[in-house]
Amino acid sequence: MAQHRVVIVGGGFAGLKLAKDLKCRDTSITIIDRRNHHLFQPLLYQVATTVLATSEIAWPIRALFRDRKDVNTLLGEVVGVDLERRLVLLKDGNAVPYDTLVLATGARHAYFGRDEWEPFAPGLKTLEDATTIRRRILLAFEKAELETDPETRKALLTFSIIGAGPTGVELAGIIAQLAHRTLVKEFRSIDTSSARILLVEAGPRVLPVFPEALSEYATKSLTKMGVEVRTGQPVTACNENGISIGDEFVASRTVIWAAGVQASNAAAWVGAEMDRAGRAVVQPNLTVTGHPEIFIVGDTASVKTEQGDTVPGIAPAAKQQGEYVAAIIKARRRKRPEPPPFKYKHLGNLATIGPSSAVIHFGKFRLKGGIAWWIWGLAHIYFLIGTRSRMAVALSWLWVFLSGHHSARLITQKETLKDEV
Amino acid sequence: MAQHRVVIVGGGFAGLKLAKDLKCRDTSITIIDRRNHHLFQPLLYQVATTVLATSEIAWPIRALFRDRKDVNTLLGEVVGVDLERRLVLLKDGNAVPYDTLVLATGARHAYFGRDEWEPFAPGLKTLEDATTIRRRILLAFEKAELETDPETRKALLTFSIIGAGPTGVELAGIIAQLAHRTLVKEFRSIDTSSARILLVEAGPRVLPVFPEALSEYATKSLTKMGVEVRTGQPVTACNENGISIGDEFVASRTVIWAAGVQASNAAAWVGAEMDRAGRAVVQPNLTVTGHPEIFIVGDTASVKTEQGDTVPGIAPAAKQQGEYVAAIIKARRRKRPEPPPFKYKHLGNLATIGPSSAVIHFGKFRLKGGIAWWIWGLAHIYFLIGTRSRMAVALSWLWVFLSGHHSARLITQKETLKDEV
Repeated sequence: MAQHRVVIVGGGFAGLKLAKDLKCRDTSITIIDRRNHHLFQPLLYQVATTVLATSEIAWPIRALFRDRKDVNTLLGEVVGVDLERRLVLLKDGNAVPYDTLVLATGARHAYFGRDEWEPFAPGLKTLEDATTIRRRILLAFEKAELETDPETRKALLTFSIIGAGPTGVELAGIIAQLAHRTLVKEFRSIDTSSARILLVEAGPRVLPVFPEALSEYATKSLTKMGVEVRTGQPVTACNENGISIGDEFVASRTVIWAAGVQASNAAAWVGAEMDRAGRAVVQPNLTVTGHPEIFIVGDTASVKTEQGDTVPGIAPAAKQQGEYVAAIIKARRRKRPEPPPFKYKHLGNLATIGPSSAVIHFGKFRLKGGIAWWIWGLAHIYFLIGTRSRMAVALSWLWVFLSGHHSARLITQKETLKDEV
Repeated sequence: MAQHRVVIVGGGFAGLKLAKDLKCRDTSITIIDRRNHHLFQPLLYQVATTVLATSEIAWPIRALFRDRKDVNTLLGEVVGVDLERRLVLLKDGNAVPYDTLVLATGARHAYFGRDEWEPFAPGLKTLEDATTIRRRILLAFEKAELETDPETRKALLTFSIIGAGPTGVELAGIIAQLAHRTLVKEFRSIDTSSARILLVEAGPRVLPVFPEALSEYATKSLTKMGVEVRTGQPVTACNENGISIGDEFVASRTVIWAAGVQASNAAAWVGAEMDRAGRAVVQPNLTVTGHPEIFIVGDTASVKTEQGDTVPGIAPAAKQQGEYVAAIIKARRRKRPEPPPFKYKHLGNLATIGPSSAVIHFGKFRLKGGIAWWIWGLAHIYFLIGTRSRMAVALSWLWVFLSGHHSARLITQKETLKDEV
């Protein structure tokens, strides 16, 4: 039997799970990613807010497959697919042949047609996004300390987060904690506890995927922590000076985008039908219509649940799809019947609100507060890769818990204040 | 008594030690630095070589003085000093008044008039320098894995370190370890153990500040680790393809500069006499001639030992100077006699060679090998700031020791392969 070449584009949750599960005779796997590392995105906001170090939530993909001779890792940027000759086309002109292709290229934050907002309201998807946001937050306090004009100072001490899904809620909570507790004793000219943290949501409530009671609890907790929650009010403008919420302009020098994502270009590469968010509409077995040898999984695929909803873009969904596709490829290689259509099993939703509170919704099980936070924390440590990262993250959290001090408060990348918007 | 304003420019070893020691009634301290963090430079090479995370060796300056109401921290770039009006001039146009001024602005790597080499041979002074070098080293392996031309592949797998002082020796040792051990099992097309690591030194031997016997030991250890040591041969050219050692051209895509430093501009700001390395020649009490209210300390000062040598640019020397200046200022404030001229006490030299060997020279005490490495390691952990960093660095080293795997192997800052030289 000839070697069967499986090419996976994207080393996110879906791609990694697939490669891990797919261990099959006469089958070789190539993982192509434009970054050298897998990123644990659910904790990326903690890098942006100075709690965790970059290397605590990212691992070199090739190191994860050190002991798998059948897995080849390739650092490269995919620009297209030659469907006829079955080649993945790279930006550097190289082409990688495949027998089975899996596109797991994820999503990027999207501005719903307002791309001009991006320089003023960075989103959070890569390590660089996180260190950029971290730099902006810390620089805002530093500049406020030097500023003599009270209006400008107020604008520097106003932080706006657009979008109140889990990421927006988590960001608002930690920024409030940073301003109202961690930094209070460190500045001499400003009172950081006077900082204003706005969480702006166009929809009617925060954490819309949670039951209403938990949304209400989250709003109350955030308010108690000093976050100003503004729901039902879309942001209508955004520039270097601040944002407009409906008709009201709020001077705010630090704005973070947590409002929406756009799928990668994978659908276009293979000519698949797209939904409104740019996701590829796939067959019930996650293949591309007319191309049983091509699968699309994770945030870049539009998959329906049994109830007809779209499967959410979260890590457990991506992993389930990776696992499912591994099972199909194995069945095909062993000439056994393929498994039945992909069925998403929703495990539940988790979100933290600040340093010691969380909400959990698992079917009929609902929990909020401190115990929910511990469950959230243990679950995330469990899902990290390797003992080393688990120890490091546990140590970082323990330290915050005991001392209240964040250990990754570095302004990096830009040399001076003047370089910054 | 009116408040006496001490302004310290630079939050390095000298500046921090001075601020820590100078706790004096009616005296306020302002620390100005263009970075928000103090950096533990002796371990910076370990960030560049994927062993440590950036936040493990850097701390926000203002956090270190959280409990000192008399200490004010200011993020800003100094561009000059108005000696008559006693003002420190900042790039943003602001000016900070002083009664006593301490310039502790350190040094930057220097190319001895060959500044055009900088893009090809980055040096190691800031966190960004370290992540840049880390990215280049890791990308060289990634590109070699994709490369089909054997000559280009060889150039990608040739790493040259220019300068064999402690930093050069330490870099060469860890890169050899990375190539010949850590990465061996992870690549499929290349054999990383075939990588060539060159340590090039214009002088007659490596680690010139150590006794000859220890230099010889270091050379032997490095050679055993697979480092090619080339002494007595200056680098005569450097470009994107490699370096010339004397008349010989060596194709080498990754070149790191560890050969020399140049003092900051502080001497020019105050019109002080400069030595050849740009350091300010100061009075025996570390003040500027004609300006008893201005001190220059650390790597940017040219200070003589009792034997007439120049005090070396190392952390213990900087700390001793900071301590000394604190004592002078205290004496002046209390109207007591000033301490006698600064006297440098050389504690010794330490350098590591790879993962489990070091050389130590403390007066008549000489030590090499594994035990020296443990002393080196414990000394560095001791000198880190705070329990948190000590635990994190100890954990990182323990992990390397037990597993052989480095935990900060991230390529960051540049999105694609193509962006890189």
